[in-house]
Amino acid sequence: MQKVNLNDKLSQFHDYWNPRIAGELNGQHVKLVKFKGEFVWHKHDHEDEMFFVVKGKFQMEFRDKTIELNEGEFLIVPKGVEHRPVAEEEVSVMLFEPASTLNTGDQKGELTKENLEKI
Amino acid sequence: MQKVNLNDKLSQFHDYWNPRIAGELNGQHVKLVKFKGEFVWHKHDHEDEMFFVVKGKFQMEFRDKTIELNEGEFLIVPKGVEHRPVAEEEVSVMLFEPASTLNTGDQKGELTKENLEKI
Repeated sequence: MQKVNLNDKLSQFHDYWNPRIAGELNGQHVKLVKFKGEFVWHKHDHEDEMFFVVKGKFQMEFRDKTIELNEGEFLIVPKGVEHRPVAEEEVSVMLFEPASTLNTGDQKGELTKENLEKI
Repeated sequence: MQKVNLNDKLSQFHDYWNPRIAGELNGQHVKLVKFKGEFVWHKHDHEDEMFFVVKGKFQMEFRDKTIELNEGEFLIVPKGVEHRPVAEEEVSVMLFEPASTLNTGDQKGELTKENLEKI
């Protein structure tokens, strides 16, 4: 059992859209990820997904609206809802979601990351 | 679907050891709570529990060691492990745990909070 310092972990990687596993509990993963630019539209058919902004800000686009998320804010995207994160500048995000969750959801492609690294 | 600003929510209550539900996903709750003083020794037989420090710091006591948690750090306490949070000064904490989790675990008593408020 060891504590996790978010800034320490976030300093260990510099690529975008590539979540790392920072913790696991009750079948859920705590992930850390950096966003910059536009991701792909996707949804998760079976998983709700939580995004918590550790540093920076980004826009979560939905088909009918956009929600800006700033440092210290979180958003839960319910299963089945199409979304696309867009970040003008680099943003550091903590995710909380079932261990089964794939980053690109139903849109498997070149942005899909499997066998995530644990940090 | 609405975003949650942690500081906004934390400004809405001032009592200690009384978690509020700030979000729900995949059968898990995201809770916000303020600690000050010493809690009761307890364990959760069926739930792992995550503590993330939003503001301040506290000590998580175990039977064989103590871990200090500072702002921006989290700790996952596995099911079955006795623990006791102790905070010299007020600390604001975000919890992730199954919706079934009782704050005092196996030590039901006057500190136990049921039917938590949603904020």
